[in-house]
Amino acid sequence: MAYAVIFTSKRTDQDASGYARASDNMMALAKKQPGFIRVESARNPEGDGITVSYWESLEAIKLWRENAKHQAVQRKGKDLWYSEYKVKICKIEREYSF
Amino acid sequence: MAYAVIFTSKRTDQDASGYARASDNMMALAKKQPGFIRVESARNPEGDGITVSYWESLEAIKLWRENAKHQAVQRKGKDLWYSEYKVKICKIEREYSF
Repeated sequence: MAYAVIFTSKRTDQDASGYARASDNMMALAKKQPGFIRVESARNPEGDGITVSYWESLEAIKLWRENAKHQAVQRKGKDLWYSEYKVKICKIEREYSF
Repeated sequence: MAYAVIFTSKRTDQDASGYARASDNMMALAKKQPGFIRVESARNPEGDGITVSYWESLEAIKLWRENAKHQAVQRKGKDLWYSEYKVKICKIEREYSF
């Protein structure tokens, strides 16, 4: 059974170029993590964003959260790029598509 | 323990005004449903969107899915507004914020 991490955030207007580069780097790094499945992201022009990443296990999510490069970027996120964010770790119970 | 419904979609470029109105109506209608907690939504300029709604129970999600007005709009979504969409029903296991 897969898991989803729902990351909702509000951007500050600081350091947009640094943010875009760090965001791309984190996506590339996450894709190399064990247990990574997929990531989807959207952001409104007003700055509200939702990123959902999918993982094979809670252990895989824990390892990603503790990844040293990811932790350095998490600190920059709090200091600079996000005025607020929320993280929810969820177990996927059912799924359907069109 | 709360539940999240992750709705990811790709918009067609058809009937933008009808879509915006229907989307606003559905948000307003969802907020009146028993067990509704909150909804968050973001869409990229390219048309990829993520909407996450939060609910108190699986039963509340089922009732919303079966709501007659919601079902009529789901049909229009498939016929007209979305080229594809995916729905995931998830149980929230952990939550933290900054």
